[in-house]
Amino acid sequence: MLKANPSSPVQSDDFIRLVHGGGGSFSKRLLEEVFLPAFRNPALDALNDSAIVEVPAGPLAYTTDSFVVDPLFFPGGDIGRLAVCGTVNDLAVVGARPVALTAGFILEEGLALDDLKRVIRSMKTAADEAGVRIVAGDTKVVQRGKGDGIFISTSGIGVFEAGRRPVSGSGAKAGDAVVLSGPVGRHGLAVLLSRENLGLRNPPESDVAPLNGLVAALLEAVPGIHAMRDATRGGLGVVLNEIAAQSGVGIEIDETAVPVPENVRGACELLGFDPLYVANEGVLVAFAEAGRAEALAGVMRRTPSGAGAAIIGRVLEGQAGRVVLRTAIGSRRILDWISGEQLPRIC
Amino acid sequence: MLKANPSSPVQSDDFIRLVHGGGGSFSKRLLEEVFLPAFRNPALDALNDSAIVEVPAGPLAYTTDSFVVDPLFFPGGDIGRLAVCGTVNDLAVVGARPVALTAGFILEEGLALDDLKRVIRSMKTAADEAGVRIVAGDTKVVQRGKGDGIFISTSGIGVFEAGRRPVSGSGAKAGDAVVLSGPVGRHGLAVLLSRENLGLRNPPESDVAPLNGLVAALLEAVPGIHAMRDATRGGLGVVLNEIAAQSGVGIEIDETAVPVPENVRGACELLGFDPLYVANEGVLVAFAEAGRAEALAGVMRRTPSGAGAAIIGRVLEGQAGRVVLRTAIGSRRILDWISGEQLPRIC
Repeated sequence: MLKANPSSPVQSDDFIRLVHGGGGSFSKRLLEEVFLPAFRNPALDALNDSAIVEVPAGPLAYTTDSFVVDPLFFPGGDIGRLAVCGTVNDLAVVGARPVALTAGFILEEGLALDDLKRVIRSMKTAADEAGVRIVAGDTKVVQRGKGDGIFISTSGIGVFEAGRRPVSGSGAKAGDAVVLSGPVGRHGLAVLLSRENLGLRNPPESDVAPLNGLVAALLEAVPGIHAMRDATRGGLGVVLNEIAAQSGVGIEIDETAVPVPENVRGACELLGFDPLYVANEGVLVAFAEAGRAEALAGVMRRTPSGAGAAIIGRVLEGQAGRVVLRTAIGSRRILDWISGEQLPRIC
Repeated sequence: MLKANPSSPVQSDDFIRLVHGGGGSFSKRLLEEVFLPAFRNPALDALNDSAIVEVPAGPLAYTTDSFVVDPLFFPGGDIGRLAVCGTVNDLAVVGARPVALTAGFILEEGLALDDLKRVIRSMKTAADEAGVRIVAGDTKVVQRGKGDGIFISTSGIGVFEAGRRPVSGSGAKAGDAVVLSGPVGRHGLAVLLSRENLGLRNPPESDVAPLNGLVAALLEAVPGIHAMRDATRGGLGVVLNEIAAQSGVGIEIDETAVPVPENVRGACELLGFDPLYVANEGVLVAFAEAGRAEALAGVMRRTPSGAGAAIIGRVLEGQAGRVVLRTAIGSRRILDWISGEQLPRIC
């Protein structure tokens, strides 16, 4: 029989078991004792198969991301903060105000319940920073050795303030300036170094942070932002290639203008990485007419994540899809799509 | 260096590699050659960090689910069909019309690309059946032995037809009839039997199907549906307990009225399972005034998933949260939350 005495004690309260994913009383306890108290809000608490969220008529931004970062906890963040910020930022960079997230958890049998609780607290903290609610969720459990602690898939919806239209990656125009919101390379290295335990002094901390406040300030202060994107997987190099391809433009970047923290530069030299291809989780690039570039960078610098903002390049006539780096010594090299082995599982 | 010649050939095109999750040119090829051609629609094709979906003002239904079913392919369905139908049905049972889904894939290194393609085709077929688009997605790859082929997390949004309000699990009222849309126990057993390879003759096939057409027909034809839910993980037994708890009512079910297919009954007897606690993926229960029960069942029976609809019980005054089964021999037993080991990984 599948049934058992519903009042029988949980055999070990300290670890996740397969039965926590079964939909019965163990699932219910996990929900009631761990998830609901952390995320509490009316839409979630209704416990229906779908949450109900009130939205205005018009365009809705809608996105999803899955997170498999290894290790779960790293300097500057953890998988929970990453899962919330990653989705918040995907909404923010299209110009939307994030309003609600969902979270699906795939847990490995044997996961310490304390680790799960720590991740959930971190998600709640990040959601509060971003001003979003987590309104729906799901939990599944897989056998030991069929997962890796915690995987989290988040989705998010965002709305546009009256009169605002979505910002896309296809709007960059010749003559635009490229403005970067902060120094690059921290997140990917923070994860890699904490995984490999290389014992570097002063290792970088992840920049993982919600960027919706920064974006709201930009949209409020500076009209005519043509394109925007956060520089996550694949780093700045890949994001610039994406925008060059989508917008059908060429992009020229001044290598010396791209802020790279000293500890990122040092670790990259040691490991043979190019900081322009290392993932960030709290950095975006914005494209706008050159005349607005100083204003853009100025607004960024007045926000916590934008203190290191810099104008790093320009959009060129022709050369559609090509990104060129002007190096410190004045030469030019193509900054193309990476195709070799990338750092695995950094987000 | 992370960079490599972007024109270098993929070393093996037949299997998923870690580099497919890196965000570079391998990720791009997987997107362009596998995901985009299958799911093609304007919101997805824009390739921005968030899709843009137009919605009317008012309540929006919003849900998520993660799928870890083992094996990926089973009689009657596969993880792709399950992922689409599970989320479509969570939207449908709150009375919403599903409009868009997202899908996050966590792939295990070494997965056969053909298996991924087959799953994606199946998702597309199910999405077409349900009339929804998959507008955003994400793919991550984990090392061999850190995942299990394919995990999929879907989320979905749905809208309410003008004047309709969300249906919740808390609206069941004393005097209501309980109407079941079809026979129970097929999905869980189909998965279990294909995993264990027990060699039964005539094993059950999964009932996995989108129920939004059935729900739309119900809402159109029968006013005053008080509560609705699909009977997935935990089966009919758990769903009835959820509704009894949320609505603060008692529920009485006539055992003989619950349709159980012969091959489900046989397999359950052999394995020691109770069919009332086996998961379904194409069955819902609806609660409405007793006088409307025949109309409800009649409308269900005119839809493909509702051919086996039956009136199975009633909502009682008092006894809040208690579900009672009247057995074939006239005795009564409590149908409570399951707490023992449930069939793992059936969705």
